[in-house]
Amino acid sequence: MSQNNAPDQSSMWGGRFAEPTDAFVARFTASVDFDKRLYHYDILGSIAHADMLRDIGVLEAAEHRAIVSGLASIRGEIERGGFVWREALEDVHMNIEARLTELVGEAGKKLHTARSRNDQVATDVRLWLRDRIDAADRQLSTILTCLVDSASEHADTVMPGYTHLQTAQPVTFGHHLLAWFEMAWRDRDRFRDCRRRVNVSPLGSAALAGTTFPIDRAATASALGFDQPAANSLDAVSDRDFALEFCSAASVAMVHLSRWCEELVLWTSPQWAFVTLPDAYCTGSSIMPQKKNPDVPELVRGKTGRVVGDLNALLVLMKGQPLAYNRDNQEDKLPLFDAADTLLDCLQAMQGIIAAMRPNRAAMRSAAQAGFATATDLADYLVVKGVPFRDAHDSVGRAVALAIDKGIGLAEMELADLQALSPRIEADVYAVLTLEGSLAARSHLGGTAPGAVRAAVEAARRRI
Amino acid sequence: MSQNNAPDQSSMWGGRFAEPTDAFVARFTASVDFDKRLYHYDILGSIAHADMLRDIGVLEAAEHRAIVSGLASIRGEIERGGFVWREALEDVHMNIEARLTELVGEAGKKLHTARSRNDQVATDVRLWLRDRIDAADRQLSTILTCLVDSASEHADTVMPGYTHLQTAQPVTFGHHLLAWFEMAWRDRDRFRDCRRRVNVSPLGSAALAGTTFPIDRAATASALGFDQPAANSLDAVSDRDFALEFCSAASVAMVHLSRWCEELVLWTSPQWAFVTLPDAYCTGSSIMPQKKNPDVPELVRGKTGRVVGDLNALLVLMKGQPLAYNRDNQEDKLPLFDAADTLLDCLQAMQGIIAAMRPNRAAMRSAAQAGFATATDLADYLVVKGVPFRDAHDSVGRAVALAIDKGIGLAEMELADLQALSPRIEADVYAVLTLEGSLAARSHLGGTAPGAVRAAVEAARRRI
Amino acid sequence: MSQNNAPDQSSMWGGRFAEPTDAFVARFTASVDFDKRLYHYDILGSIAHADMLRDIGVLEAAEHRAIVSGLASIRGEIERGGFVWREALEDVHMNIEARLTELVGEAGKKLHTARSRNDQVATDVRLWLRDRIDAADRQLSTILTCLVDSASEHADTVMPGYTHLQTAQPVTFGHHLLAWFEMAWRDRDRFRDCRRRVNVSPLGSAALAGTTFPIDRAATASALGFDQPAANSLDAVSDRDFALEFCSAASVAMVHLSRWCEELVLWTSPQWAFVTLPDAYCTGSSIMPQKKNPDVPELVRGKTGRVVGDLNALLVLMKGQPLAYNRDNQEDKLPLFDAADTLLDCLQAMQGIIAAMRPNRAAMRSAAQAGFATATDLADYLVVKGVPFRDAHDSVGRAVALAIDKGIGLAEMELADLQALSPRIEADVYAVLTLEGSLAARSHLGGTAPGAVRAAVEAARRRI
Amino acid sequence: MSQNNAPDQSSMWGGRFAEPTDAFVARFTASVDFDKRLYHYDILGSIAHADMLRDIGVLEAAEHRAIVSGLASIRGEIERGGFVWREALEDVHMNIEARLTELVGEAGKKLHTARSRNDQVATDVRLWLRDRIDAADRQLSTILTCLVDSASEHADTVMPGYTHLQTAQPVTFGHHLLAWFEMAWRDRDRFRDCRRRVNVSPLGSAALAGTTFPIDRAATASALGFDQPAANSLDAVSDRDFALEFCSAASVAMVHLSRWCEELVLWTSPQWAFVTLPDAYCTGSSIMPQKKNPDVPELVRGKTGRVVGDLNALLVLMKGQPLAYNRDNQEDKLPLFDAADTLLDCLQAMQGIIAAMRPNRAAMRSAAQAGFATATDLADYLVVKGVPFRDAHDSVGRAVALAIDKGIGLAEMELADLQALSPRIEADVYAVLTLEGSLAARSHLGGTAPGAVRAAVEAARRRI
Repeated sequence: MSQNNAPDQSSMWGGRFAEPTDAFVARFTASVDFDKRLYHYDILGSIAHADMLRDIGVLEAAEHRAIVSGLASIRGEIERGGFVWREALEDVHMNIEARLTELVGEAGKKLHTARSRNDQVATDVRLWLRDRIDAADRQLSTILTCLVDSASEHADTVMPGYTHLQTAQPVTFGHHLLAWFEMAWRDRDRFRDCRRRVNVSPLGSAALAGTTFPIDRAATASALGFDQPAANSLDAVSDRDFALEFCSAASVAMVHLSRWCEELVLWTSPQWAFVTLPDAYCTGSSIMPQKKNPDVPELVRGKTGRVVGDLNALLVLMKGQPLAYNRDNQEDKLPLFDAADTLLDCLQAMQGIIAAMRPNRAAMRSAAQAGFATATDLADYLVVKGVPFRDAHDSVGRAVALAIDKGIGLAEMELADLQALSPRIEADVYAVLTLEGSLAARSHLGGTAPGAVRAAVEAARRRI
Repeated sequence: MSQNNAPDQSSMWGGRFAEPTDAFVARFTASVDFDKRLYHYDILGSIAHADMLRDIGVLEAAEHRAIVSGLASIRGEIERGGFVWREALEDVHMNIEARLTELVGEAGKKLHTARSRNDQVATDVRLWLRDRIDAADRQLSTILTCLVDSASEHADTVMPGYTHLQTAQPVTFGHHLLAWFEMAWRDRDRFRDCRRRVNVSPLGSAALAGTTFPIDRAATASALGFDQPAANSLDAVSDRDFALEFCSAASVAMVHLSRWCEELVLWTSPQWAFVTLPDAYCTGSSIMPQKKNPDVPELVRGKTGRVVGDLNALLVLMKGQPLAYNRDNQEDKLPLFDAADTLLDCLQAMQGIIAAMRPNRAAMRSAAQAGFATATDLADYLVVKGVPFRDAHDSVGRAVALAIDKGIGLAEMELADLQALSPRIEADVYAVLTLEGSLAARSHLGGTAPGAVRAAVEAARRRI
Repeated sequence: MSQNNAPDQSSMWGGRFAEPTDAFVARFTASVDFDKRLYHYDILGSIAHADMLRDIGVLEAAEHRAIVSGLASIRGEIERGGFVWREALEDVHMNIEARLTELVGEAGKKLHTARSRNDQVATDVRLWLRDRIDAADRQLSTILTCLVDSASEHADTVMPGYTHLQTAQPVTFGHHLLAWFEMAWRDRDRFRDCRRRVNVSPLGSAALAGTTFPIDRAATASALGFDQPAANSLDAVSDRDFALEFCSAASVAMVHLSRWCEELVLWTSPQWAFVTLPDAYCTGSSIMPQKKNPDVPELVRGKTGRVVGDLNALLVLMKGQPLAYNRDNQEDKLPLFDAADTLLDCLQAMQGIIAAMRPNRAAMRSAAQAGFATATDLADYLVVKGVPFRDAHDSVGRAVALAIDKGIGLAEMELADLQALSPRIEADVYAVLTLEGSLAARSHLGGTAPGAVRAAVEAARRRI
Repeated sequence: MSQNNAPDQSSMWGGRFAEPTDAFVARFTASVDFDKRLYHYDILGSIAHADMLRDIGVLEAAEHRAIVSGLASIRGEIERGGFVWREALEDVHMNIEARLTELVGEAGKKLHTARSRNDQVATDVRLWLRDRIDAADRQLSTILTCLVDSASEHADTVMPGYTHLQTAQPVTFGHHLLAWFEMAWRDRDRFRDCRRRVNVSPLGSAALAGTTFPIDRAATASALGFDQPAANSLDAVSDRDFALEFCSAASVAMVHLSRWCEELVLWTSPQWAFVTLPDAYCTGSSIMPQKKNPDVPELVRGKTGRVVGDLNALLVLMKGQPLAYNRDNQEDKLPLFDAADTLLDCLQAMQGIIAAMRPNRAAMRSAAQAGFATATDLADYLVVKGVPFRDAHDSVGRAVALAIDKGIGLAEMELADLQALSPRIEADVYAVLTLEGSLAARSHLGGTAPGAVRAAVEAARRRI
């Protein structure tokens, strides 16, 4: 970039500037390199603005036609790769406007009447983000459907449930997948709430205070599919809540994915071997020929950091900014873009993995049988026989200690040994010590009994 | 803490443990020091659980009565300061249960039937948080009312509007306060959305898989004012979205407060002097006798970091945790408590400041008159006279450069000088160069014209 | 707190204030509740300051004696629990100074000559932090010694090395522990670098610009063990780098601990069972009698979030603050205190665990034998026989695929089958396929061969 | 990307894989798009590795020559833009190795002997980062020099010093710039400490455990300018402290820049007008023709968020990862690259601004005269006359209250009025109430007296 960019900028800022911009500063302050991806929304916004300017008499019909057809040509140039983006023109807005003026002359110079880049960029980003939220909604919906289908198939596939990564109680794989369902459900719900606050039109707020032209903000809002115009012009140009809230919701969603992926990494490790991922979802090693690595879950888990980092970047960015617009806000775009791109990619990756993963029923059952997973059932059995829970808990604890000493499971203990610990124990105890008995007993709403899981699947299908 | 805590813990964990807990470990793992503040909600949850256990026949009527009255006594002991919290009993739950058993004997040992600390703590925290959200809602509502009242009073108090902290265009102080209103409004809206997802009952999920007792989760959920029981037991004990989402909403709210406070610090500085805070809201210096410092806004601005830090702590905490409950989750409380306490304190502080601050109309008007604040009006004037916006912008830029050279304002320029820059300028130009003319012209929805501000005040009153 | 705190504050700020402080504001702005823990360092700093004031003639010898003995009495009162902390006196500094004046009269009022709370608090915190860094240094040194001792003991205890949590190559447990050693070593190194920048004296910078008294800053710096006085007074009162840098180093250290703890949680899970923790370091379940949970590693892992959150809080706090001191900075203390306390507790916890954990050699060896851990050795064998590495890698990949099909390990394959994949393979191949052969071959600096581990142990002992 | 990438990947991972990689997965897992910028360091590392392989007899001299000249050709292709980067080859390492094999045949396949991508990428990134640190060091050194030069020029340019953004005491602009100097000095110092820990060679650690070849790690370390080889192979491939520590240091540095930029934004605002930035460092408005915005400081302030976000991303990334290498670590690059690029750009921007900014002496002096900046001097005056500091502080507070009532400054008060507040005041008081008197009195080390500033300038020149 050199001095010859000066003419470009003076055409934007007018005659107040005596010196051209320093070349490094021109590069440092330009955003076109990353905001050009907003071109589609910038053109949509300009068309809505031009329509409104015609309706209120600021543009002649012919000027309006020239502008709209010029913008259509520019869109075509961009999409064919023929558009020349110029850093000297700073951003997507000025690049498009300058080209419009080249194409259609004087009319092009009138398009910026009654608006500013401050309301323009806020409008563009909100439109862009609304589309990303809708894409995330679709992907989450697909994931929800996959999870329900798989939960239905595995409503009685037994596996160990863990707390503290220690075997706790038997659960079904279907039940576990429905826990994932609830997490994804809340994510979709949060994005929908976020969308309501995103879908508000800043257009017409101009630089900060509105404009002296008799604009019709309701008309442009409606034309662009916004629910309503923003109620205050100062707020409309300085607000970046939409980015903060989206990145918050995306961070929570990524934390969820990181938890699923942690489980997938564990389950595909040789110590667990609960799940097999297809070769198509794994990669190998450049040095260890035997390796088949769960790269996709690892990368999703790692990308969680990126989105959390993006959220932080935006919180730090906005902290302590006085109203209204400050140039700092230009820095909202890269973190927001990165968070949305990363989220959408990771949702797609998880969607593929959920559909493709194959549980290994034998390994799951075998792990569930170890670890005294039915000890709580034995305590509950004693409670039903009249022992207060705390005392029952204590007796079973001693039974477990004895079983560990003997190297056997609870179901393998002699009745006499059990009775020595609590005289209330009778021969019917062995029924509650089986995996199936344990599972079946947790049949209330939200419980892991196969019947309860099937009921939850039906309820989930109705909610999707 | 010493070895004699071993009996306590063995009464909780039963006979599986051969060795007492290490004294440092007992202190390191205990949470009672901070979770005791949940006592009220823990007792509420226990009463609802006991009622339900009686209804399904697990507790006799007399046992139930003993438990309920024992819990009432305990609440009294705690509130009178007579309750002895014991670190060896780990947490609020076990402290209360152990005391209950002391007070009412065997019945006390039955209370933990069909539940676990995993669902119990999640229930307690959700109830606690619901109350904090409601408190924030009330405080935000008060702030919204204050802002509207003050905006109404200052619908035509002129001040400079800033972008880049440079004078941009005149606005009214009422308009500025309504920008704050929109920020606070979105915060209240977000907390309400958050409340829906918080207000779900984990009770009955037990350790992770539900329980073998025929519990009625809808009954306990309803008794505690929850909208519904959580749909999946694994999710219910492992989910901390409520904390993440609350801290996200609180972080955005604090970022808003930090922006208001930045403005207050600027406005009370001698260079601005736009606003006076009462002595009661300031503090002095231990060394400089003349100082009257805006400590409250500074502290609020600083506390923003705390809440953002709390959000981060929780995101890092939850990242990559496999299901279901892990002890890591005990660490959710301090950040959540700190975020809620800080938010509520800061909202109260801001409420007081908004009510107490006094704008200095003369200083505001005088600042608005400097800085060529009506330059955009001049450009718009030229557009109305038929000059394309870009050309008008350029002419006005040259006018400003000339005015700077001459050391005068735009309204003080000779008509001839203005006409030299653009022949379309006529004598009527001086009307648009006044502050009142500039303000009045921005009369559309969301604009800064006094009439538009009054209309926005009315609309805001209807929304509160 | 009530209005009667007003006299207290007016005694601090002098006659400029006409109204007493609002009661909520007094509570909101007070820091004594948390900064009183600095009392020891505040008194140390005051004594050094008083000594210097005497030496430059500002204090009479008798006044000096009264101050020093008054401060000693106050220290005693605080340590015996007899000191009355008053919120109305805002902070630790004013509480101590007010009490001093009660005890020794006029001389007490002279102590604040030539200093301000701005330099005083920075001095106190730096002294406090220096002690915490030294404590962390001692704990890290103990951990380093434990790790080296244990590595020495397990220089040839074989276990599977993992990448992507898939079996990669055999390593020794001693080698793994030395990886932990390197992490802890860097942490200690970073804290030492941090200490150099912490150990600089702000005293004498007064409010921001220094003082009109002919103070001897080198003398107070030296008396307090600082390496030097801070070179610029404005910087000295506004700088919080010491807190930022400490929390950065603490965050990295905690991330390290989180990684060790993740491994401990995996290794103590029933699927791995590589390591046993003593009962004294575990806790049980209130509902599942069989559970023995690795709570300490889980809590340490979870507390990582807290320290990262503290770092963030401080970064957000300091972002964008103009010089010199702003009240925001009062908010530096809680995050810094929390980070230091958490770090020191977690280091102590890990120290205990490292000393107490017992590796299960049989389980480790058995896991190393599964998973084709010596496949890379086979590839290297082929390279030595003249096959280019990429071709060797490919042949071994096919060997692994065949072994998976047959359900056997590489060492169990027939020579003929191996030769079918590569004719260079001869009977000597079986030596490289054993765990011991594989280990022994990685004998270079930093490699996992038992001999290399023993050499690394010796080198590590020299470095400690 | 399509199925025809399968052959590429099978050539990397060998015969273990039966299915080609899914096209989305191939794109999702590839890193070449961003890690190709490491090409220079990848080639340097490969040459050092090849030299060593020749020296230990693994490569023939001719093979070695072919490899080295092939790598030189590849470097040329890349720098001329003629190199075809293929996503199917995943990363920079495999792209270069594949091309090398195309160019030089069998010898190319031997280059990967005794290394892995795990040690290779760690080596590349450390080399890259070392160069970035050196660039930051040079930029900071230039900034330090600029600051000292400017401080020297403005050793007696008076301005108001602020605490709480309220006028506190007079300082000199040179003194203020030296506060910036101290901040930048600590940054440079931290980067130098960081460099020591970065400059350690992972090469030879191979996948995780070292290699079976008799490599000479000291030789490759030395050839690449590393201080030493990493002491443990597991640590060497899993460690990302270098990235964490660099981003920590960069975050603190950016927080410093954000503080300077906050001041520049204030100082260039019309309310302050303390400093003028040249047009070349500002930009204008698309709508407000009069605007000249301090965009560069605003952007730097905003970019602070980016770097803090990058640090967070890395902390979240590394939290809880078991050893050794996990694919998550691929995600270290974008945040690290972004942090380094942003830091270097911002340092360059600040360097330009510091050299170009012009202080407005008149505005500074005039602001210093308002605000009772010499009130502390009056208190100190009374102390010298024998009044205890606390009592002096109180009297001056009443003097200020009186002056505010009268609308005058302290120096304009009648002697009688002053004496009414304290009979110790005499006519010599007026000397201490002047700006010059106040400044000159703070002449100790680190104080703001012009002489002290000049001495600090000399000391700073010696330190650079």
